[in-house]
Amino acid sequence: MRLTEAATPALILDRGKFRHNCERMLAKARSLGTRLRPHMKTLKSIDAARVAIDPNHGGIAVSTLKEAEYFAGHGIADLQYAVCITPDKLPQAAAIAVQAPGFSAFIDSVEMAEAVAGFVRAGNPAFGLWIEIDSGEHRTGLAPDDDRLIQIAAILESAGVPLAGAATHGGHSYGERTPEGIAGVAEQERLAVVSAAERLRAAGFAVPGVSAGSTPTSVHRASADGLTELRAGVYMVGDLFQSGIGSLAEDEIAVSVLASVIAHNPERNQIVVDAGGLALSKDRSTAALADGDLGFGLVLDIEGEPSLGRLTVAGVSQEHGEIRGAAPLPFDRLPIGARVRILPNHVCMTAAIHDRYLVVDEGAEIVARCDKIVGW
Amino acid sequence: MRLTEAATPALILDRGKFRHNCERMLAKARSLGTRLRPHMKTLKSIDAARVAIDPNHGGIAVSTLKEAEYFAGHGIADLQYAVCITPDKLPQAAAIAVQAPGFSAFIDSVEMAEAVAGFVRAGNPAFGLWIEIDSGEHRTGLAPDDDRLIQIAAILESAGVPLAGAATHGGHSYGERTPEGIAGVAEQERLAVVSAAERLRAAGFAVPGVSAGSTPTSVHRASADGLTELRAGVYMVGDLFQSGIGSLAEDEIAVSVLASVIAHNPERNQIVVDAGGLALSKDRSTAALADGDLGFGLVLDIEGEPSLGRLTVAGVSQEHGEIRGAAPLPFDRLPIGARVRILPNHVCMTAAIHDRYLVVDEGAEIVARCDKIVGW
Repeated sequence: MRLTEAATPALILDRGKFRHNCERMLAKARSLGTRLRPHMKTLKSIDAARVAIDPNHGGIAVSTLKEAEYFAGHGIADLQYAVCITPDKLPQAAAIAVQAPGFSAFIDSVEMAEAVAGFVRAGNPAFGLWIEIDSGEHRTGLAPDDDRLIQIAAILESAGVPLAGAATHGGHSYGERTPEGIAGVAEQERLAVVSAAERLRAAGFAVPGVSAGSTPTSVHRASADGLTELRAGVYMVGDLFQSGIGSLAEDEIAVSVLASVIAHNPERNQIVVDAGGLALSKDRSTAALADGDLGFGLVLDIEGEPSLGRLTVAGVSQEHGEIRGAAPLPFDRLPIGARVRILPNHVCMTAAIHDRYLVVDEGAEIVARCDKIVGW
Repeated sequence: MRLTEAATPALILDRGKFRHNCERMLAKARSLGTRLRPHMKTLKSIDAARVAIDPNHGGIAVSTLKEAEYFAGHGIADLQYAVCITPDKLPQAAAIAVQAPGFSAFIDSVEMAEAVAGFVRAGNPAFGLWIEIDSGEHRTGLAPDDDRLIQIAAILESAGVPLAGAATHGGHSYGERTPEGIAGVAEQERLAVVSAAERLRAAGFAVPGVSAGSTPTSVHRASADGLTELRAGVYMVGDLFQSGIGSLAEDEIAVSVLASVIAHNPERNQIVVDAGGLALSKDRSTAALADGDLGFGLVLDIEGEPSLGRLTVAGVSQEHGEIRGAAPLPFDRLPIGARVRILPNHVCMTAAIHDRYLVVDEGAEIVARCDKIVGW
């Protein structure tokens, strides 16, 4: 079956590009003397995880407990829920930890350390916790010199809760625009989480894991000294924002949205497709790039090649995407029913609503169809 | 079970507000001497459709063929796929029409009329088509005076394809900010689609349906003369954008996202919740409102009341939402694990990724849990 026969809109994965991106990041981790923990928040699919997992590590990161349950059900034992856990999520997390003995979660407060300690003292199963360190993103996490690090470790230890380690996410790398700027954030990440781990060790706690990462910092990192793992996810498939900030080349982006032309309006120089704000997402992160706004996505031909010129989806409503342009649009090449593939601004937002993806291998022949999970 | 016990993030529907909004729009249609075709693109749920359907009409509109299949499976016969159909979607549409005899779709081109005629001449089941009229939105549809109206009707008639009618969507009402401006778009909608229907009738074609609508134009419409139905959807539940342009009051918004506080940072005056860009969507439509930007949503207490002050989710990443404020945040009222309810900017975008919703009836007691569909 070819993409011409698939129902639209549909999420498409280019297998060759995906594998290339995965292998490159594995090689990067090895070259830095560390290991890779792929974050599966983008594709949320066991088929993708099997390609991405570092054979020297075996674990993954996830962004929801639903992902953790799904991957535990597929036999992955080392699952890092890379979000601060809350009291109400403890029973679900403990149940996952029974199935996946390497399950772990993030924590950044004394209150939650006490809640976890109480939960475990009440006879519930324990699981590992990573103390989250704020290396400059200012979202969640404690500063490396915050005294609560030691308090949290002591409370966990007193209840027999294993300390998985210290972890950080330098998400502020997304605000940098040069390799040097991103490498600077990578070093901030490393110094923050390594110094936190050293403080904990100096206070007498074992700190088996030291985890840092984002895609940009992992790509541009010069040193992983003191890190036991890099943690990144979007590198596997990429998107226009990541190519815009230099995490990969535009022709290495492995995910696109297949859409059909549903209407023509030559008077307005407009082509409408059936991929709108839901199929593409309303993410507008490329608007912040110096190279120019790519609207809601860049339009490629059905083979995934940029043969149509630099067309973008300039506007969206729920199920409509409007391709507009300064130069006359290629109406003849794109009759009603014709297919295009649209590169997304931010693939994590785009992929999330799709419950499956079609796999192609260079071109428009579908070689597999994979399920993925959606929601919570 | 109460909302304090539900897993987060979760989509919440306030049943009382939902019913009130549905009844008001039904009364509006009746007062104008017409009928209502509720558009089910927002909640995508049979439970919601049963409340919203006009007993004098019986039909609904949908935005995807997956919705059409779902509602056909639940016994709804009159299903209007309110998007221009494409050649590749004809087999799926015809199969739906066998199950739902009132299934219909939109068309706005001679090419597609020929494709449908060929499909039906080849022995496939026919279904009704609405010629889409552009009443000023400039997305899809033909101008009312376009000669292709007559050509399309003639091609369909020659193949025995029923003309369902003429239909328009005045989506440009979303750009208006006053009741008078929106009423003006409503009159544009009406005049455009009624004049198109009259041209078709003058050319000898029966035009059983004349369909117009959007939520703002349906709320502010003064006349439905010549219309056989109003078509609207978001009015059922509303959102911050719709309250911002006067389609309903803010305290009539019936959908919110339940979230848990996952982290505190008093130094940065920041509270982080587990509803981010996926659970809320990245829609930023309220940024265009004069009354002030509501970020990624407005934060209410667990009862759905505005007792926390005018807090907004100022920033999102995939699974994190950051509440920040000029005044000190209510950290004591919102300890880690506390629940809040967040009103969305654009509920169609927010609801889409959730595969179920919890129903409450004034307050925080869950009275039902309903499934909905997701994706394509």
